[in-house]
Amino acid sequence: MKVIQNIKVAVDAVVFGYSDNKLKILLIQQKFGTKSNKWALPGGFVKDNENLEKAVVRELSEETGVKANYLEQLYTFGEINRDERARVIAVSYIALINPKNYTIKADTDAKDAKWFNLNEIPNLAFDHKEIIDKGLERLKAKINYKPIGFELLNTKFPFSDLENLYQTILGKKIDRRNFRKKLLSFDILQETKEVQKIGSGRPAKLFKFNHKKYKELEQKGFHFEIKFV
Amino acid sequence: MKVIQNIKVAVDAVVFGYSDNKLKILLIQQKFGTKSNKWALPGGFVKDNENLEKAVVRELSEETGVKANYLEQLYTFGEINRDERARVIAVSYIALINPKNYTIKADTDAKDAKWFNLNEIPNLAFDHKEIIDKGLERLKAKINYKPIGFELLNTKFPFSDLENLYQTILGKKIDRRNFRKKLLSFDILQETKEVQKIGSGRPAKLFKFNHKKYKELEQKGFHFEIKFV
Repeated sequence: MKVIQNIKVAVDAVVFGYSDNKLKILLIQQKFGTKSNKWALPGGFVKDNENLEKAVVRELSEETGVKANYLEQLYTFGEINRDERARVIAVSYIALINPKNYTIKADTDAKDAKWFNLNEIPNLAFDHKEIIDKGLERLKAKINYKPIGFELLNTKFPFSDLENLYQTILGKKIDRRNFRKKLLSFDILQETKEVQKIGSGRPAKLFKFNHKKYKELEQKGFHFEIKFV
Repeated sequence: MKVIQNIKVAVDAVVFGYSDNKLKILLIQQKFGTKSNKWALPGGFVKDNENLEKAVVRELSEETGVKANYLEQLYTFGEINRDERARVIAVSYIALINPKNYTIKADTDAKDAKWFNLNEIPNLAFDHKEIIDKGLERLKAKINYKPIGFELLNTKFPFSDLENLYQTILGKKIDRRNFRKKLLSFDILQETKEVQKIGSGRPAKLFKFNHKKYKELEQKGFHFEIKFV
């Protein structure tokens, strides 16, 4: 098949993390090229013998040392001049990880890699700001109908962490009482015997997300759905 | 920038139409290649000087003669062996059109082009069945929270057409009374002075979707949302 086309294919990852009640994003500092020193999303060119998902997993590992449990294709960016070096289309992914589980280490292609608060991101290379905006939009929408937020929390967490996570991502106050009632009614949160001391209040019970139970319920037609009025 | 990569980029369109109370899909019969005569989604390779959306609009026009009002990026398919001729990644799009507005005509690359009932599609080339499944999944989800279904109807339609459209896409009976009440409460349907005789019943009023009103409401924070319990 003879196709004359001069387009390269890259993958980029919008890696969200959550700690200290803040939503974070993992960025790398570019080592090579005209955008050297600029911060950008982790990512790179797809190899001929790997599918898109494998490419993004590999790039994440090579450039930052993280391995995402949750990875979802986001959108493909294909404007003609998004990279001045060549025509490159970027298949972007969202990844969710708990920053506590990894020591970030820049590797091979990257000069540095670190977490930034989402409201304090530096000037980014290419259209990466636009990709992040799209990723945030997806995350905001999706936590209302899929229990993906748990990927960002510790395995065991006080209920207030879950509330804060939702408030932080959605960027608004939620009715804590209704939120708690709703979430507990789903029967996918498992109360553990452990407690955690938070501030000056009395120790808070720790909960676990019950993946197995959720899968079972989902197969029976259960929809995780949170409505914020 | 020296990147050794042997991957081609194509776009493919899942074009949904609706007529005779059936959901349809627009397919083309391939003219060239090892898949000659096989039915497939309209689509083709992206040119170096056009963005992805322009490519899909061009391919649709060249292969089928249609121009979609509604076009939305769906998903990018990038498995290694999805096309045995070469490594090709396909950026897929959903398009919604009203079949009545177009005469389908196969052109340039396609031997034939026509509408198929969604439950009667032939064996398709590549992973195109998988792309259609993904497209249908998106359509089913999206008509519940965006008023895109109107793209599939005539400009003026009896309310029963809208009900049938939803029932057909969702593949289930809906509570017609609640559906009607809900839709009319949104105040985005405009009653016209025209009527249409359907079957043996009394003539039905025709409605129009008020795009302008919807845009205004949307800007004020209105969410189109239909819940089927």
